[in-house]
Amino acid sequence: MVTDTGSTKRSVIRDTKDMVPEGCHFIPGHPLAGTEFSGPGAGFPSLFEGRYWLILPNGADAEKVSALEEMLSGLGAMTEQMSADYHDRVLAITSHLPHLIAYTIVGTAVDLEQDLKNDVIRFSATGFRDFTRIAASDPTMWRDVFLNNDEAVLEMLQRFSEDLSYLQRAIRWREGDKLFDMFTRTRDIRRSIIDAGQD
Amino acid sequence: MVTDTGSTKRSVIRDTKDMVPEGCHFIPGHPLAGTEFSGPGAGFPSLFEGRYWLILPNGADAEKVSALEEMLSGLGAMTEQMSADYHDRVLAITSHLPHLIAYTIVGTAVDLEQDLKNDVIRFSATGFRDFTRIAASDPTMWRDVFLNNDEAVLEMLQRFSEDLSYLQRAIRWREGDKLFDMFTRTRDIRRSIIDAGQD
Repeated sequence: MVTDTGSTKRSVIRDTKDMVPEGCHFIPGHPLAGTEFSGPGAGFPSLFEGRYWLILPNGADAEKVSALEEMLSGLGAMTEQMSADYHDRVLAITSHLPHLIAYTIVGTAVDLEQDLKNDVIRFSATGFRDFTRIAASDPTMWRDVFLNNDEAVLEMLQRFSEDLSYLQRAIRWREGDKLFDMFTRTRDIRRSIIDAGQD
Repeated sequence: MVTDTGSTKRSVIRDTKDMVPEGCHFIPGHPLAGTEFSGPGAGFPSLFEGRYWLILPNGADAEKVSALEEMLSGLGAMTEQMSADYHDRVLAITSHLPHLIAYTIVGTAVDLEQDLKNDVIRFSATGFRDFTRIAASDPTMWRDVFLNNDEAVLEMLQRFSEDLSYLQRAIRWREGDKLFDMFTRTRDIRRSIIDAGQD
């Protein structure tokens, strides 16, 4: 039994298809936990406590899947089964797109003239500071995530760009009601996440 | 002496120009502190400790500015003087643009089909979760911020969109080196912020 920590499951399943020896059971999976640090040294005992661990059985032996779920529950994680395709779409919007956006906005700041850039660092406020933490994530891992989940990421990115243009236009044409409506709708999602105990 | 908590100073200075009675001194300013909650009840004793408080003297009496700085230092804040124009550009990239982006990505998630949306909430990972916190900020205040600092926000938004298109194209054409280069450059900014003690 093997579980990997990558996060684009269709490509993992495709690439490992012919490599699993007989008698071995490959069950892709992914914990929704972690920090911007990598490697064994970045672990801590409560890392998986109360966090979801997604499992993508992909036709694996049900008994082996149960055994894996039992082990992960022992680490404090909550397991959940889903298809690889669905997994990749959920992760595209909850994790991959936010990382791409954070990398972009921090990159935009890097390219500002030097004085302004220095003060962006000194006066980095809530918002930008959170983005810099995300944009400090492992470059190699994230390059591979985007190349392997390109289809779902590009779909979500297209939706995002349309929505951003809508708000950009509302600012330019001073349509305050459109801004207010959008900013009000997004509040409810935060409440739902707090209710789901994932904040 | 008055200080306001809005964050687009050129518009505040313009709108108050003819309203300050003789003998009164208007000194615009802005603390870089706060949470997503609003109102006096959201305050706490250490709110301003070690945080910057930007002051835009705008020709005010130097003695009065000193008195204000002394009061703010008493709250634990570090004061810093700058022009209104420069202030609005710094805030556009460190605060306003990140808020607009966070509102947008959470809005994009709100519009997904119901099943996917529910799982986005349940499985909200690092990244998206941070964005939902930002996107729960006060809608009225943020509508006004964007309408009043429209010029600087639209400029930074244009730069951001170009940079995002660059990464989008790199994903589509599988140019991993471009992704890796950008993701490596953004790491340094995080280190600079940690060094500046603002993390």
